[in-house]
Order: sequence, then C-alpha cells, then structure tokens
Amino acid sequence: MKNTALIMAGGRGERFWPRSRRNLPKQFLSITDDGKTMIQLTAERLLPIVDIEDIYVVTNRDYLPLVRDQLPGVPAENIICEPVGRNTAPCIALGTAMISKKYEEAVMMVLPSDHLVKYSSLFQTTLRDACEVAEKGDNLVTIGITPDYPETGYGYIKFINDISESSGRAFRVESFTEKPDLEKAKEYLASDDYLWNSGMFLWKLSTIKKCYEELLPDIYDAMQRISKAAGTREQDIVIDELFPSLPSISIDYGIMERAENIYTIPGTFGWDDVGSWLALERIKRSNESGNIVDGNIITINTRNCIIQGTDKLIATVGLKDLVIVDTKDATLICSRDHTADIKKVLENLKICNRSEYL
Amino acid sequence: MKNTALIMAGGRGERFWPRSRRNLPKQFLSITDDGKTMIQLTAERLLPIVDIEDIYVVTNRDYLPLVRDQLPGVPAENIICEPVGRNTAPCIALGTAMISKKYEEAVMMVLPSDHLVKYSSLFQTTLRDACEVAEKGDNLVTIGITPDYPETGYGYIKFINDISESSGRAFRVESFTEKPDLEKAKEYLASDDYLWNSGMFLWKLSTIKKCYEELLPDIYDAMQRISKAAGTREQDIVIDELFPSLPSISIDYGIMERAENIYTIPGTFGWDDVGSWLALERIKRSNESGNIVDGNIITINTRNCIIQGTDKLIATVGLKDLVIVDTKDATLICSRDHTADIKKVLENLKICNRSEYL
Repeated sequence: MKNTALIMAGGRGERFWPRSRRNLPKQFLSITDDGKTMIQLTAERLLPIVDIEDIYVVTNRDYLPLVRDQLPGVPAENIICEPVGRNTAPCIALGTAMISKKYEEAVMMVLPSDHLVKYSSLFQTTLRDACEVAEKGDNLVTIGITPDYPETGYGYIKFINDISESSGRAFRVESFTEKPDLEKAKEYLASDDYLWNSGMFLWKLSTIKKCYEELLPDIYDAMQRISKAAGTREQDIVIDELFPSLPSISIDYGIMERAENIYTIPGTFGWDDVGSWLALERIKRSNESGNIVDGNIITINTRNCIIQGTDKLIATVGLKDLVIVDTKDATLICSRDHTADIKKVLENLKICNRSEYL
Repeated sequence: MKNTALIMAGGRGERFWPRSRRNLPKQFLSITDDGKTMIQLTAERLLPIVDIEDIYVVTNRDYLPLVRDQLPGVPAENIICEPVGRNTAPCIALGTAMISKKYEEAVMMVLPSDHLVKYSSLFQTTLRDACEVAEKGDNLVTIGITPDYPETGYGYIKFINDISESSGRAFRVESFTEKPDLEKAKEYLASDDYLWNSGMFLWKLSTIKKCYEELLPDIYDAMQRISKAAGTREQDIVIDELFPSLPSISIDYGIMERAENIYTIPGTFGWDDVGSWLALERIKRSNESGNIVDGNIITINTRNCIIQGTDKLIATVGLKDLVIVDTKDATLICSRDHTADIKKVLENLKICNRSEYL
C-alpha cells in the first residue's frame, strides 16, 4: 500500500520568541547546527519511506511562501492552506480530503513540522513498523516515546505492556492522559506503562474517515465536500466557506481518546519537541562552563547559560542560569526558571499594539 | 583675586563600557536625564564662580573635537592637549603653566570632568569658601566629602576635627589614606575624622608652583619651559617634547601627601564619582520593582535591575540584580556583584584585537 504523509505546519508557537515571530514560527527556523529548518528536517527524514510527491503540508495562508521556499520538492498542489487555525482534527480532515483525491486507499502518516529526531534511521524503522500495523486492520497507530525524565509539558499514553495484546510491534493503548504534575510524571516515569504522546499518528485513509464519520460527523461532511472540490477551481472557495465554521478540536480529544483499535509503537529515536529555549541543552553541545553559545559572544564567569546571538557583540559577566536571545530588533533575557513566562512579554506587546515585535 | 579652573578631561575610564568607549569616555557621555554630558555639567556648575574665559581644560588629543563641541563657550586656546597620559601631577602642571601665562597670580581650582554634583549651589558655596582659604595663605585645599556609606573604592582624608586648628571653614588635613578594605571603611565611617577624597583641589598659582619646585623639580622645570612657550607657535612643540618624558605620578602622591598647609573643606553637595553602572541607582529614580530603566524595555517579574537600552526592544523575564546595557554594536549583561569584572571583557577584546569594541 502507498505511504503518504501529512505535515502539519500551521503552528504559531510563541516559545521561541524573539527568534520566532508571527510571520516566522518555529517550524521555519533553523535550530540545529546544520542550517536546515525544522520543516526541512521533517520532510527530509520521511524521504526513505514516502515519495516526495506524496508528502502533503497543511499550513496557514501566511506561511505558504515559506513552505514553498523551504520545501521546493513538494508539489505545489500538495501544500494546503487553512484559512484560519482550527486545531488538529479539522486540519487532519483537510489533509485527508486532499490525499483522498489522489488515492482511494493509502497509509497516511500525520506529523508535526517542528519536532526534532536525532536518529533518523530508527525513526524510519519505527514508522515502517507502524505502517504495517495501520495497514493490517482498522487500527489507529500513535508513536509513543519512551520517557527519559518526568516531563510535565507532554501528554502521556498509557499502554498495555503485554505482548499478547500487541499487534506486530504495536501495543494496545489503554488511555491518553493530560499533562501531569511533577508527582504524577515521576510516577509515570517509574512505571513501565506510560509513553510520551508525540503527536505522530498513522492510519489508513479508510480508517480515519470512518472515525470522522462516527465521532465528528460535522467535520466528516466538510471533509467530503472539500474532497470533491479538491484539485478543481472550486477548491479554495469551498475550503474558505467550510473551514472557519468547523469546531476547534484536537485529534486526541476528538478521535484518539474515543475510538477503538488504538495502538502505540514505542519509539526511541531521540525525539524532541523543542518546546522551549531550554531544549537547546538537549540538542546542542555545551562548552566547559555549561554554556550553549552561538554568535559573537564573550563570557566572563558565566555558567549554564543559553546565549543565542547574531553579529552583535554580547558580553556576559558573572551570570548563571539565564537564556539570552538577541535578534535584529529585540533582545530577550530570561531566567531559565521563567521561560514559561516569555508569553507574558508577548501579551504585553499585544496589549500595547506593538505588533512589529510579535 | 581672580578665580580660574582647570578641568581634567583626559580619562579613558572603562567602567561604563559599552556606552563609554576609547573614543568616547565617560566625561563626554550624558548619564543624567537632562541630556547634558558630564563635562558640560562640570563647566556649567562653575560659571557662577569662574568666568568662562578662565576655565581651562586638559585633555587627550583624541578628545579635542569632543571638548570643543561640548564646551563651545570655552576659548579654544584654553583647551590643552596632553600628547600622552601622565597621571594628575604632570597634567596639573601643564594647566598651571598655561594659566600662569595669563595671570601672574590667581586662585586655581582643579576639578575632574566626570563627577556629578546634585546640589550645585552648595557646591558653589563650598568652592567659594575654599577659594578664601587658598587665597589667605600658602594653603593647598582639598574638597572632602562627608561619607554616606563605607565605600571601598575611594581614598579617604583624615582631618583634624578641631575648630582651633581650622582656617575659615577649612580643617587641617592629618593624612591621606589609600582605598580601605570594608572593615576599615566601616571604621572610617563610624569615626568623625574621615572624609572621602574627591580629587578636587584649590590653591593659588604661586602656592602650587612652589610645591612643584620643592617636591617635583623635574616637572617644575618642564612647567616653566612650557609656560614660556605658551601661546606662541612653539607651544605644542615644547609640550610634545617635554611631556612624554615626565614621570607618571598623581598629585596626591607627588604633592598632597608630602606638602604642608593642607586643608580640607567638607562638602555635602551630593557628590558622586559615578564609578560604575551601579551609581545609576544613586542618580536615577527606580520604579516600583526597584529597576532603573531607560529605553524600549519590557520587564516581567524583574527586580533591582539597571537596564539601559536604546530603540531596540529589550524584554526581561524573571531576572534580579543585573545590569543590562545595550548599544548599537554591543550588549553587556552583568550581575551587579560583578561590575568590577567588566574590565575583563575589555582585556579579552584587546587580546583578540577587536579594537572596534574598545
């Protein structure tokens, strides 16, 4: 069966401000040292298992030039624009509609565009295994990540750690859980029944369409109408008409938590959702003082800092545990314990109508 | 007797980096909110007691355009260039030579160009009193500052706190002491015999010349030869020839600590030598979070920080006790306990031949 992929690239994440902006979200930034952007890396690591003409991207209209520019090999008609953001269930329905126009049946992988994977070949093996499980029956397969530490920022998957309940390399999912507090996260880490929910899914077109029909009939109807118009002159008109009225609902909440035949394959391929500036410590090499430093930097008596600069000189003296990010028009200086409060800067900017910095 | 003033403006202070640079030292910066530079404020507060044509400035040749630009009212022939820096004793000798060309006898005030005074009228009253004491006999008068706190960065003056030993409002100086450690500084503060040495001096031309003749005869000889050439075409040639060979010695060490008839007038006019970025806390008003903020700044959960920016946005999150100074080509981020280490940044830049930032 044909493998297809849907890359979701409509996110407007604010946690990489000031490098990420409304007009340049995280997925279009290069965070790693190889100079490739996150969406480029996402597409690149799919190529051994998906033909490039079967890679689809759903994005926001504002980002269409960025996607075209960064993924020149993906056919223009595979890049689909959401007129407004409506969470993952409508987004995936839109992708499903477009892919269904080309293939009556196929395996469909759904992938975020702004995560990193360290070991590409392990990732590809895991996805191949997942394809098999998805192909074999009407299974919804989610990629779980074996946790390294008690992260409180992710949802978790509770699975039945019993080979007799498995299908190929996939295990049956018992339930999805919301982001836990630290106590619960430690408990999950200590047990062997929990995986991180990576937001990567695999299924057949027919399987997911059946789920939409049963569980999200409004979205299913829109999907059918969009699919009919796909590739015609009407396509964008129909999307613009139907999409904004769809409910904003996640695929987890709308389908995964309510459907049956949910399986997970545990992945150990060095996954990272790069959820904040602190992720750089997992991705980049720190120097002997524990600093992660890029740019024109002089550090004096400075420890455990993340400093991301440009050509401009940044001199640090007697600092520890800070995140410093310099861009052309804005500088962020943030204590490592307060990266979650970066959004307050953005709220402040919004209130003051200073959209040039958003 | 005529009052004259010599403003010393050759300093290359590094403690206000990155705002101050080799080609723009502290005395030429505006630190206060009124937009006037420190040397402008220095000259301005002398005007009620010294005619502007009797104000002299000794500076480095590199800074001649800055002095001319910032003090347009001071006669061009009163601005004297040191070919090289040779500490205060040769500097003051140079000024004495030039003033002696104009006046056979006069009171001469010697003032640093990079200190601040809060209460100008009290300053002027104190200087008038000091002029009287200098005029009355062969007295060397230094302005002492009543200490507010146990500062370890200043030298101290020990004076004889006894009205029977006083001359007018001036008290006899017993000795000068070097910068003390904190323990000693606390002791000095607790006693009533110590004042801060402000580096401001007053004397008659004849008095100081006699001191040079007795205590620093090499400098005296040079002074005499320069005085003879002053105002002629030979002036700069003679200065260039003689000055570099003079010993680098301070007026405190060369004369004040060894001469007799040393008096001090205690001043309480809100003096500040603005010795580091932390001085801004004494000079500027902090906001309700204890931050001193200038520029385009957003602070979230930030306390007791000094943030000096420009047009560029600086956003701070979860910080305390930092000094942040942004300029066009360099940003300093320094813990308030480490401002003394700013010079290490400059050493690093020197070693790396990055003089564009010095």
